[in-house]
Amino acid sequence: MNNQELAEKLGVSLERIERLLGRVVMRSSWPEPQLFRLDKAVAGAGEGTVIFDNCEVVCGYPKIKRAMMLEPALKRFFPGTVVAEEKMNGHNVRVFRVDGNVVALTRGGFICPYSTEVAREQVPEEIFDDHPDLVLCGEMVGPDNPYVSKNVYPVESMDFYLFDVSSKGSREMMGLRVTHELAQEYGIKDVPLLGEFDSDEAYREITKIIKRLGSFGREGVILKDPNNAVRPIKYTSSESNCADLAYAFRYYNDYGRDFIFSRVVREGFQSAEWDESEEEFKARCLRLGMSLIGPMKETVEAKMADDLIVQKVQIKVKDLKVAKDFEIHFRRLGVRSIFHEPEPCGDGFLVRISRLAMSTNDKTKSVIDGNTW
Amino acid sequence: MNNQELAEKLGVSLERIERLLGRVVMRSSWPEPQLFRLDKAVAGAGEGTVIFDNCEVVCGYPKIKRAMMLEPALKRFFPGTVVAEEKMNGHNVRVFRVDGNVVALTRGGFICPYSTEVAREQVPEEIFDDHPDLVLCGEMVGPDNPYVSKNVYPVESMDFYLFDVSSKGSREMMGLRVTHELAQEYGIKDVPLLGEFDSDEAYREITKIIKRLGSFGREGVILKDPNNAVRPIKYTSSESNCADLAYAFRYYNDYGRDFIFSRVVREGFQSAEWDESEEEFKARCLRLGMSLIGPMKETVEAKMADDLIVQKVQIKVKDLKVAKDFEIHFRRLGVRSIFHEPEPCGDGFLVRISRLAMSTNDKTKSVIDGNTW
Repeated sequence: MNNQELAEKLGVSLERIERLLGRVVMRSSWPEPQLFRLDKAVAGAGEGTVIFDNCEVVCGYPKIKRAMMLEPALKRFFPGTVVAEEKMNGHNVRVFRVDGNVVALTRGGFICPYSTEVAREQVPEEIFDDHPDLVLCGEMVGPDNPYVSKNVYPVESMDFYLFDVSSKGSREMMGLRVTHELAQEYGIKDVPLLGEFDSDEAYREITKIIKRLGSFGREGVILKDPNNAVRPIKYTSSESNCADLAYAFRYYNDYGRDFIFSRVVREGFQSAEWDESEEEFKARCLRLGMSLIGPMKETVEAKMADDLIVQKVQIKVKDLKVAKDFEIHFRRLGVRSIFHEPEPCGDGFLVRISRLAMSTNDKTKSVIDGNTW
Repeated sequence: MNNQELAEKLGVSLERIERLLGRVVMRSSWPEPQLFRLDKAVAGAGEGTVIFDNCEVVCGYPKIKRAMMLEPALKRFFPGTVVAEEKMNGHNVRVFRVDGNVVALTRGGFICPYSTEVAREQVPEEIFDDHPDLVLCGEMVGPDNPYVSKNVYPVESMDFYLFDVSSKGSREMMGLRVTHELAQEYGIKDVPLLGEFDSDEAYREITKIIKRLGSFGREGVILKDPNNAVRPIKYTSSESNCADLAYAFRYYNDYGRDFIFSRVVREGFQSAEWDESEEEFKARCLRLGMSLIGPMKETVEAKMADDLIVQKVQIKVKDLKVAKDFEIHFRRLGVRSIFHEPEPCGDGFLVRISRLAMSTNDKTKSVIDGNTW
């Protein structure tokens, strides 16, 4: 694909493409197939949109807006009925077939070799024989997810859960009926459907669901219109908020800053909406406070004992080449990490990865050496 | 003063001054005397430095660095003895005489009419008769401080507490001996001296002081070299951190974002350094969590009851013109506020001020109306 073709595909001028190349429109020539990737929205095509050299386009997965107070948001967006689907906590991928091969794109539009391997194992190719333009949007979750590792799902390693479908070149999602029907027809795991509720019961029932999910450390819900007429919105549990904060503040100088404000504000709104007893409110405050400084304190103590602060994640692969490729992929994302020697595990290999939290290491060392902030 | 003179005073070229005027070097023609004010450091002259039309320069008050862990910081900066002074919580002013009148400059280099009135009442003019170039650096504190209102000091309205001295044109502070001697000689209030400690006892004793100050809701300490040979550093109590957060998150969308990260990190380091019991650690987490969402929750509840979210502060003035001038000053700082009708009070007037937290108002209204974040 030359620049002129790319410009036409995106509906912008050749001059504009030439200005954007390397800044917003990024070239990726590895792994195959080669593609252009949008780092930001361009002319209505969303962030993460990918244009392959064969001229096929896979649009970016749209950002889902967040309700901060559930009851008024339900009234505003879903005055009739609403369906609650579980929002699973992993990383968002788009799975489809291009040039004859199934690939998995990350939210940002990179082909992830590890997610691709998992998708090839778990998504039957027939679905693409029958629907060559289909784009499966889903969450990769589980303990062997190297982006977001979670033990709270019935997943042994890392599984793909379908949550919506689209088709090549389209910016629209097909919605929940099509999604769950396809999942059932082709035997693909889909995110749990938690119920369809009328407006008079939705707030009460979904709040119960949120509390229950939270008690298992699960993230929350996506609220969808049964007929796909309204864009979905999300709403999450306090426990998931706090787990995010605990994770981020363990590596406070690498992640803490970006994470904190929005999550604290969510806690404030949820507490106000839930009309909590003094005891429930104190439990929430304690949970929030502990998530902010508990793991961070452990980081400081570890550094005082002269440990290296690393974030331990892992992948399980059938083929060692996938692990090697994932290492290249992780490095190109700018992640500094150490890939340990593969360990045989079942019919494949376990590869432990230590992500280096360099900024947290350096800052903590500096402070315990007595330097000022 | 023309631009050429200003350039010479700052030691930069005329071209550079012309580029900086209105962006970094700001003109202020009210209240008298007229001046140039540095919004950022220029050629080694710090932020808040002021150059008056009579060519006198008052340097910006230097930023005091913060210890995040007390014991190693004491070892690093004060291997011999260290003096602890109370760090009072109000606003920093520089008080001096220019063109025959005493004025008080804010940290940013504005003449504050209200602080100026207080300084004129509380600082005897003889000190400037004897030392015409003297610059008194101190904190204005008390319940009638419209910038930072605190009830934790033995102050009825707003008092000036001296904490260092300098002289016109100089970037150097004279240190604690000169400061407290001058305060005593001229009967000016000075910040409390909390003791001089040898290195073997300093950490233990200053930690006790911090805990005691914290229990009264007071801020913390400034650590100084008895001979002014090392720059001072500051260290603060958990209770003061949390009080800042509680205040900021009551107006979360106006202030919360800037306040939160650094203060949470301070809590994490203090907790690690103090080797707390499980019970003490939980008390800290609860205090932190409540400071983040307690007042914020009240804000949401107030907005649900359709109240306007305002921050109530007040000033007490002898002369109503000062209140009028302070209103002009507050407005030029970009503060949106309502000044209520003055109420007679003692031999002067009480003026209640409602600062509008517009961003918090708008965002909270939007969320309780069901909009997404």
